[in-house]
Amino acid sequence: MASAQTPEGGPLAAVSDTAQAHAVGGPRVLVAGATGFAGALAAHLLWRHPSFELAGVTGRSEQGRMLGELYPRYRVPLAIEELDLARAEGIDAAVVAYPHAAAAPTVAALRERGVRVVDLSADYRLRSLQTYERWYGEHPRPQLMGEAVYGLSELHRDAIATAGIVANPGCYPTATLLALAPLARAGLIADAVIDAKQGISGAGRVFDETTHLSMAGENIVPYKVAAHRHTPEIEEQLAQLHPELARLRVQFQAHLVPLDEGEMASCYLTTTREVGAEELRELYADAYAGEPFVELVDAPPGVLEVRETNYCRVFAASDAHTGKVIAFGAIDNLWKGTSSQAIQNLNLMFGFPETMGLT
Amino acid sequence: MASAQTPEGGPLAAVSDTAQAHAVGGPRVLVAGATGFAGALAAHLLWRHPSFELAGVTGRSEQGRMLGELYPRYRVPLAIEELDLARAEGIDAAVVAYPHAAAAPTVAALRERGVRVVDLSADYRLRSLQTYERWYGEHPRPQLMGEAVYGLSELHRDAIATAGIVANPGCYPTATLLALAPLARAGLIADAVIDAKQGISGAGRVFDETTHLSMAGENIVPYKVAAHRHTPEIEEQLAQLHPELARLRVQFQAHLVPLDEGEMASCYLTTTREVGAEELRELYADAYAGEPFVELVDAPPGVLEVRETNYCRVFAASDAHTGKVIAFGAIDNLWKGTSSQAIQNLNLMFGFPETMGLT
Amino acid sequence: MASAQTPEGGPLAAVSDTAQAHAVGGPRVLVAGATGFAGALAAHLLWRHPSFELAGVTGRSEQGRMLGELYPRYRVPLAIEELDLARAEGIDAAVVAYPHAAAAPTVAALRERGVRVVDLSADYRLRSLQTYERWYGEHPRPQLMGEAVYGLSELHRDAIATAGIVANPGCYPTATLLALAPLARAGLIADAVIDAKQGISGAGRVFDETTHLSMAGENIVPYKVAAHRHTPEIEEQLAQLHPELARLRVQFQAHLVPLDEGEMASCYLTTTREVGAEELRELYADAYAGEPFVELVDAPPGVLEVRETNYCRVFAASDAHTGKVIAFGAIDNLWKGTSSQAIQNLNLMFGFPETMGLT
Amino acid sequence: MASAQTPEGGPLAAVSDTAQAHAVGGPRVLVAGATGFAGALAAHLLWRHPSFELAGVTGRSEQGRMLGELYPRYRVPLAIEELDLARAEGIDAAVVAYPHAAAAPTVAALRERGVRVVDLSADYRLRSLQTYERWYGEHPRPQLMGEAVYGLSELHRDAIATAGIVANPGCYPTATLLALAPLARAGLIADAVIDAKQGISGAGRVFDETTHLSMAGENIVPYKVAAHRHTPEIEEQLAQLHPELARLRVQFQAHLVPLDEGEMASCYLTTTREVGAEELRELYADAYAGEPFVELVDAPPGVLEVRETNYCRVFAASDAHTGKVIAFGAIDNLWKGTSSQAIQNLNLMFGFPETMGLT
Repeated sequence: MASAQTPEGGPLAAVSDTAQAHAVGGPRVLVAGATGFAGALAAHLLWRHPSFELAGVTGRSEQGRMLGELYPRYRVPLAIEELDLARAEGIDAAVVAYPHAAAAPTVAALRERGVRVVDLSADYRLRSLQTYERWYGEHPRPQLMGEAVYGLSELHRDAIATAGIVANPGCYPTATLLALAPLARAGLIADAVIDAKQGISGAGRVFDETTHLSMAGENIVPYKVAAHRHTPEIEEQLAQLHPELARLRVQFQAHLVPLDEGEMASCYLTTTREVGAEELRELYADAYAGEPFVELVDAPPGVLEVRETNYCRVFAASDAHTGKVIAFGAIDNLWKGTSSQAIQNLNLMFGFPETMGLT
Repeated sequence: MASAQTPEGGPLAAVSDTAQAHAVGGPRVLVAGATGFAGALAAHLLWRHPSFELAGVTGRSEQGRMLGELYPRYRVPLAIEELDLARAEGIDAAVVAYPHAAAAPTVAALRERGVRVVDLSADYRLRSLQTYERWYGEHPRPQLMGEAVYGLSELHRDAIATAGIVANPGCYPTATLLALAPLARAGLIADAVIDAKQGISGAGRVFDETTHLSMAGENIVPYKVAAHRHTPEIEEQLAQLHPELARLRVQFQAHLVPLDEGEMASCYLTTTREVGAEELRELYADAYAGEPFVELVDAPPGVLEVRETNYCRVFAASDAHTGKVIAFGAIDNLWKGTSSQAIQNLNLMFGFPETMGLT
Repeated sequence: MASAQTPEGGPLAAVSDTAQAHAVGGPRVLVAGATGFAGALAAHLLWRHPSFELAGVTGRSEQGRMLGELYPRYRVPLAIEELDLARAEGIDAAVVAYPHAAAAPTVAALRERGVRVVDLSADYRLRSLQTYERWYGEHPRPQLMGEAVYGLSELHRDAIATAGIVANPGCYPTATLLALAPLARAGLIADAVIDAKQGISGAGRVFDETTHLSMAGENIVPYKVAAHRHTPEIEEQLAQLHPELARLRVQFQAHLVPLDEGEMASCYLTTTREVGAEELRELYADAYAGEPFVELVDAPPGVLEVRETNYCRVFAASDAHTGKVIAFGAIDNLWKGTSSQAIQNLNLMFGFPETMGLT
Repeated sequence: MASAQTPEGGPLAAVSDTAQAHAVGGPRVLVAGATGFAGALAAHLLWRHPSFELAGVTGRSEQGRMLGELYPRYRVPLAIEELDLARAEGIDAAVVAYPHAAAAPTVAALRERGVRVVDLSADYRLRSLQTYERWYGEHPRPQLMGEAVYGLSELHRDAIATAGIVANPGCYPTATLLALAPLARAGLIADAVIDAKQGISGAGRVFDETTHLSMAGENIVPYKVAAHRHTPEIEEQLAQLHPELARLRVQFQAHLVPLDEGEMASCYLTTTREVGAEELRELYADAYAGEPFVELVDAPPGVLEVRETNYCRVFAASDAHTGKVIAFGAIDNLWKGTSSQAIQNLNLMFGFPETMGLT
């Protein structure tokens, strides 16, 4: 029997104590903020990972409750605890899944104790403090910004391997940058419009009109018009790929559509010169040769093809009618867009094969 | 009892014979091609319309079956018949819901018999035969192109009132043109990217991978990349709104998202000069003052707000970061995007209040 | 232009001021508790009703906000107010959409002022105070129980017509009783198992794990096992249909399934004697002859066939394998299950045609 | 780069050639009928299984197409071939995923060549030929019926280990029997009503009204009323658990609800004597002690908790109001209900740990 019964018939307390192979002996990883969607999935992935040991799960709420009760699908048989920095010595790494501004102080405290961090918040994604402050307000711990590496594994693999802080990318920048990187690196982008669509899990464990099935279920809703904070993140990274792109202003717009997990970035690019179909194909094929998690496809991908995987499917085409290039990046926003990419980064940081625990 | 029982317990044959007020005595309207989603909804709307009489429903398949059996929601107690042009004399108007190329010969035959036609196909939407042939192939009855009026009620109200053929717009052009018309009329559009999303009903009564719930249900899928036939329709209409737009090449991209009815056109516009928030507001307020079916809103609309209505919700904003204007048009693709707009046009054609039977 | 723009670009404030025909001059009906799903829909239906005048909408929260902003689909251009009993004199009737126990004092206060009430709560559905107290706890105003009529229009039409308080049925009892009434009236039910499934709107405007699309969306969840309060309501009504059923204990179980509106009651009946297919058919045909909102069908109905209607589709069959009878009742839980049935009852109470404003 | 590009830009041909660890050297298993949902998932699970080698995938259609193109989610880089019995010698086992009646001849042909078979069809699930013929018609190869073992792993573990033919259970019997087995084994069931709900994947790769998102998406539809072929399968297995149950007639009813994968069997049981809460708990705890894939829970489970797993969550309660017992079995119809259970059986047949490749 793979269960535990509680006397009062409360919510699910069942866990599978025999069915999961929990690694013991490898690097010990803590998940701080495991009550949200992103932290819970990171805990699940670490729990089933062959080499990492899930050292604990903490939350600012729900303390004492089993994570496997809060997220029955994930079957993680650990109780949610308060974060206790005094115990950080026994920890090798931490995934911090806090909101922006709340994350930085915890990241800093963990770093002081020698813990390597993958930060799922936006706090260390931007390189420019000025840009951060314009979009997010005051930064609680700007001193550490220089230490952080942007955690899009495919772009910063080497730096991630030795980083103390890996700033895990936003889900939209992940899909967008993988769709655009080959063009950007070649300096071919003159103007970029990105229309992104995401499932409701992107709103997280938030209970309001945006997530109620009766309001979200048969709906398509644009949000944060002309104001999405993933915009500067995309722009900074594009600028790093080619100096000419430093002045590019990206038009980014997000939409919620009625599914759980899945995200599509549809990118419309005015190019600096004509880019033909053959050149486009070669550009992308060269850029992604050997990439284990980027799947170049020759027809528009659907997000269902990457659901609950760390893959990003990329498709690019040139439009003879307009002269523009259209590029699509399809990911699972919670997986490659967030938590499984965190594992990919942890694999890189600890010298494991990049795909370990992810295929 | 509002039902009819068939002896063999086959599929639903129930109809509500008392509950619907079927107008008798008004203009008699035939629906040709009532077995598809668009034709069936047009029949439903005509059946409950206070002034039109639904003269009959025809189909190229399913003949003899009750429409209310094929579409139980619509409760139209008429049998699907073969189209019999000999009986066209008793008909005042017809909604033709055939695929493109199949529609034109029937439209022509009906016109010869004096029947006024709202054509849901693409056959008479374009003014340029050359453009039609480039996107659709040979035109079966090009002679009638000059007689047709483009049926976007808000743009061509007066011409529709006296037209013999009203070419009902595509659903994407409906949402897009209503979102763009105020800017276009002012000649302010220098470049346009339109990213459109639609529910699965947009695929119609087609049974394949694109509509199977297990494949479409948790998916977002771009389709017809750099090749959607609604592109020239949008371009032609924009050009009519301002001569400067005659050379505009519109980047249009469609996506299927997992809901039934609903469509969002997200439009990203490079303007010919800076357009501030106040000017934008006035432009749209002036353009749509008095329009019964265009609802200007001051936050991004969701398609659920217009589901099963003839309304189009429009929202426009300027983005200080990029200088672009973003405009959204939200409709129900089957209603304002197709069948209820056909009723709106019929109301105009027969001198009824434009909103009759639609609110 | 059918809109109102607010200066700060907040949530939707748009309403259609020309498109809706709001009756003025007929009986004035107040909706108390219009912020929930049931009250909001009742207000929408009254607003578009040809003979009732929607006198006002009140709420215990959201006061001052437009109802059409809270529920953009419903386009009711009234502000939510605090309930002011001093103004009850100008009111002919009220729909009270409060939770149980909260409703009774308001119902009583309205009755004292001569207002006829349709109460959507459970407070006056049961005839036995003892039964009420066993399932709900203390009754705040038991004195009025004798005055209330159970508002299943099809069963209590005459009493409803003259009632001061109509206790609108629960959605599950509505579907169940319409599926069972013909058998019950003939005293043929020896044992009844009812398995009911409902869309997420049944949970109401509640924001938690049961309604979040990521948790409810690909789920089927039984709830209130062996404890659903609709059980005694079903039992009491069955007992009124035949004295032999007074001791029947109904097994009732509810489930949430991932759609918005729709409810199916699947009923499995051990009969007191064999009931053949022919007898079953006649029993149901006789029972529902002339009923405008009960559609007997000859194949199992889907809830989509009754979505956003006041219809109940009923199908019954006998199973030669087990000897049991299976009966299905399909409704829209928010419409016939709640708010449109309230209008049906108001029509009866004020002498209007029963179907007015509902087809 | 993890992809393959086809010249004509047709449907997806991408496969991940590096990311999947395909076992070579273990028992070689063929999947016959891999184009349907069940066969494709079996192929996916075998491809990623650490000990089995997926020897090939065959189909009666789609030959030459890559399975990973037909089912992009599964990333199986094998072409669909015609079944060639001449090559059966190199095969140790086969999963046959054909419709009933079509399966038996292939099963027989494979057995003649010494191949051990897991048959996903109904052909060898029943022990009584008479019962088979009453529900399915003539049996193409009745001679092999005696050789087959019913493949509900939890009930027939030992016999499965040495079987030549394992008749994989229907999905509904899987959920139902696991919910009922403890009660059945104790001979406590006097009457059983089973109301089952399933996602649309249960309809399989069938393209019609039952699977079109616009018709299935906001729907609840009962089907095969009083006629579901899983009924005798459940009855036969219950009778094997206790001789007293040989005469039990089970009332079984299936419904389609709008999700992809997931199935709930809600069982309502009249018991032969009173069964209290404590006895019920012990009965189930004893029955499922040590079962790796049965999760006893102490609150009603949701199917999302078992999605894409081989787990069955079981919850049982006694109802003091009616004296009945209510038991729920929640599975993923395609996984534990079909294809992952086939892997569980293959594990048993070849002496691997029962959970291998499934957790």
